[in-house]
Amino acid sequence: MDWETFKNLRGSEKKAFFMRNGRIYHVVMAQQFDRPFLEEICNLTTRIRQIAKSNEGTKFLLGLLQGKRAMLYFTQPSTRTFLSFVSACQILGMQWAEVRDPSISSEMKGESPEDSVRTFSSYFDLIIMRHPEPQFAEKMAFLLNQTPRPVPIINGGSGPDQHPTQALLDIYTIHRSFEDHGGIDEKHIALVGDLKRGRTARSLAYLMKNYRDVKLYFVSPPELRMEEDLKNYLREKGVKFEEHDDLEEIIPLVDVVYMTRIQDEYDKEGESKLIPYERYHFKPEYLKILKPNAIIMHPLPRRDELPVEVDKDRRAVYWRQVRNGMWVRTALIAMIFGVDKKIWDY
Amino acid sequence: MDWETFKNLRGSEKKAFFMRNGRIYHVVMAQQFDRPFLEEICNLTTRIRQIAKSNEGTKFLLGLLQGKRAMLYFTQPSTRTFLSFVSACQILGMQWAEVRDPSISSEMKGESPEDSVRTFSSYFDLIIMRHPEPQFAEKMAFLLNQTPRPVPIINGGSGPDQHPTQALLDIYTIHRSFEDHGGIDEKHIALVGDLKRGRTARSLAYLMKNYRDVKLYFVSPPELRMEEDLKNYLREKGVKFEEHDDLEEIIPLVDVVYMTRIQDEYDKEGESKLIPYERYHFKPEYLKILKPNAIIMHPLPRRDELPVEVDKDRRAVYWRQVRNGMWVRTALIAMIFGVDKKIWDY
Amino acid sequence: MDWETFKNLRGSEKKAFFMRNGRIYHVVMAQQFDRPFLEEICNLTTRIRQIAKSNEGTKFLLGLLQGKRAMLYFTQPSTRTFLSFVSACQILGMQWAEVRDPSISSEMKGESPEDSVRTFSSYFDLIIMRHPEPQFAEKMAFLLNQTPRPVPIINGGSGPDQHPTQALLDIYTIHRSFEDHGGIDEKHIALVGDLKRGRTARSLAYLMKNYRDVKLYFVSPPELRMEEDLKNYLREKGVKFEEHDDLEEIIPLVDVVYMTRIQDEYDKEGESKLIPYERYHFKPEYLKILKPNAIIMHPLPRRDELPVEVDKDRRAVYWRQVRNGMWVRTALIAMIFGVDKKIWDY
Repeated sequence: MDWETFKNLRGSEKKAFFMRNGRIYHVVMAQQFDRPFLEEICNLTTRIRQIAKSNEGTKFLLGLLQGKRAMLYFTQPSTRTFLSFVSACQILGMQWAEVRDPSISSEMKGESPEDSVRTFSSYFDLIIMRHPEPQFAEKMAFLLNQTPRPVPIINGGSGPDQHPTQALLDIYTIHRSFEDHGGIDEKHIALVGDLKRGRTARSLAYLMKNYRDVKLYFVSPPELRMEEDLKNYLREKGVKFEEHDDLEEIIPLVDVVYMTRIQDEYDKEGESKLIPYERYHFKPEYLKILKPNAIIMHPLPRRDELPVEVDKDRRAVYWRQVRNGMWVRTALIAMIFGVDKKIWDY
Repeated sequence: MDWETFKNLRGSEKKAFFMRNGRIYHVVMAQQFDRPFLEEICNLTTRIRQIAKSNEGTKFLLGLLQGKRAMLYFTQPSTRTFLSFVSACQILGMQWAEVRDPSISSEMKGESPEDSVRTFSSYFDLIIMRHPEPQFAEKMAFLLNQTPRPVPIINGGSGPDQHPTQALLDIYTIHRSFEDHGGIDEKHIALVGDLKRGRTARSLAYLMKNYRDVKLYFVSPPELRMEEDLKNYLREKGVKFEEHDDLEEIIPLVDVVYMTRIQDEYDKEGESKLIPYERYHFKPEYLKILKPNAIIMHPLPRRDELPVEVDKDRRAVYWRQVRNGMWVRTALIAMIFGVDKKIWDY
Repeated sequence: MDWETFKNLRGSEKKAFFMRNGRIYHVVMAQQFDRPFLEEICNLTTRIRQIAKSNEGTKFLLGLLQGKRAMLYFTQPSTRTFLSFVSACQILGMQWAEVRDPSISSEMKGESPEDSVRTFSSYFDLIIMRHPEPQFAEKMAFLLNQTPRPVPIINGGSGPDQHPTQALLDIYTIHRSFEDHGGIDEKHIALVGDLKRGRTARSLAYLMKNYRDVKLYFVSPPELRMEEDLKNYLREKGVKFEEHDDLEEIIPLVDVVYMTRIQDEYDKEGESKLIPYERYHFKPEYLKILKPNAIIMHPLPRRDELPVEVDKDRRAVYWRQVRNGMWVRTALIAMIFGVDKKIWDY
């Protein structure tokens, strides 16, 4: 099969291709995660957090992937995703290196990204990448699978398209927040902001098909609505959703408010400036109409859409999300290398 | 207390705030160091250097902070400070990561430096930072202390303001150089060059209040005099100082000549070019009029103010300063994490 | 001896200067490698690869240079060389740091490269460097040898001049490819492309004096011929060579086709664009006229001179070259630090 054929397959048809020895290998799109996998990774994450509380546990984790080495290839700006992956590698005792600025790499001399990635695979045991081009990580996973020495690829964000590990940390945060309140099933979730170009909201929405009776509220300016392909996906999977353009009237109805910033880095000529985005800001007075057990999430970085004074409210969980990201990625890497059993046995 | 109130407190009032469990925690300003602390860190530094001479000792040190991880957030250019902190972390077996170029981080997407630093604190056990804004490290230490999960902050240089770990390595170098000649007490020290904007001279001058009968000579062009706030501080603490603008006549009088380069990166419009800075160069013939037991220091990088041919003189100790910086920072991190007792017990 | 005198010595006269305690110390030029050294490093490389196949072997290697630390100072773009050195350090358990962008280092503040390198030598046990200036690594090795605390330097590429570790990995790749066919002696080797400015071809050609009856074909546009100094070197050492400008007619005659890209980064004003470089592309139909046991090499990065469809041919060994680079550099560092005996004893 060639790449042109492969890339047009459905997510479910591609899924097997991202597995190896019965476990997850390449992590490229949210659609490849099913409910058993999501529950497994949530449980493993919690287990790792417990182990890491002691010095002895920290040293146990450090020994798990000694001698394995990871390459972080991030050609789009990133702080959180990049550093949380670095931290995850460090927690498991992996060594790592990074290429972030293409101007200091051989792409300056005309090397194709494909040759760069194949070079990384010659030296490292894992490639974690962020790239502006949609489906780039998927294509690299496909190409590496054709070589005599493939290594796993984790997509750390591909253009406006996918950010599957962000979706995992979001799921884990909701899972933990509602652990004593029925879990994710039946929850009402508002995704707010630039849904057209925000890959975190897209990746999270994909995962909702794995939960029972979830209802999504897409709250965005009319110009920044969720794309049709994703809405079709939800319709097909029977996930209920509604589209709204007034944030205030949705706040009292939901269990989760998932805020996002405007993604103006994808603007062609400053068109975002014409959109009255203040209507999609979380105003501090909304705290009064928000349900007592609801949570406020944000993938960060934030700008004005989520004022700092909200941080003190106990329903604000976005700083917990940040730290959860590190632990979920640790669990994911552990699963890819098959050391999850050792963690359970500890 | 809010930041506006805190920031206007006196150094001595802030000091307790930078401690935790009876030991140093945040390292933000030279004024927080007292004489017992300075003697303790000098002795610990010498002890660490001895231990590191053997292979077995090197491995002992490597095990001290295994599993701890440091973030180096340096948004101003640096070679020496940055690499000596990296080395200090490595010597103690810490893992580390860096953010140096804001254009590859989320500040590009509009994230506030406060949110960036809180993010680092979510992943790492220690934050070492250099920032162009005065009091930035201090503000971050203040803010982190308000969060549920603070981590220690070390100021690796904040604008023209403070560079407390440089002051520590300078103190250690003088301490070692005069170990058999009465220590730092009673020494005459010339601080030469751009005293207005050079934070290393400022930070060192602050520390002189801890020593008996030290006399400072501030030798600089009239335009680049030491700032009034620091001179007031010295007056209040009873540290003697004189201001001069002729270097040659001061050379025979002092035990320490501390050279600095012109800090033209803080120029508004090239005003430094008008200053006859050659008068504050150390001319090779000064070696003849310098006392036989005096020392020549420089925080580096140097330009023409200190010619390479001086390097060969045995009184030139600036290359020793460089290496001392690594060992003092190692001692400092060891003290912050409370492993200094293990080092003494070795 | 001063640098001006030293730099004009012949390679053979300099050789002793790059040794210490009877073993290799600084690695700056291909001329310093003799046949016993080349055979030793090839054998050690193969041994390390075998050891690294097992988990236990990987851990043994990780322990060899624990506590040693390397500085990678790369001021020219690089992916492969940089990352393979990083990997080599990691495989041997060394810690490392990098300076790649002079704009974030103290050279911005007017520091001389000599002072920067001396600073690195204060903190690290090994300096690996790539620099645009010819003989820069050699000069730094010379200067460090004058200081009280020298550390070894490895040249990772100096301008259009030398790239000695690339030559080592090329030798290892040819050695392995012809292990059952008489080794490197008597082989016919075509070096193809921009021979004037390509340092990999130069460095490899130098090494041919160590093998019996090798014949070199320099195939290049007339404007990009191999420089006279190298041809004089070969004449003097009795290495046969011919110059050609038609690639197709040489293909059937040789055992090794060593392709290189045009080095237009050294163009003064785009003069490369006038050269019909397509004549020095490896056309897929050449696979039919190439000997069955011949090999196709390329130092990478490649552009159009070596089409991706050639990759599938079993005679294409350039991806193996990439990986060999990591193992040869591992062997080299092991030899510099004298742990090669431990590897043989394992």
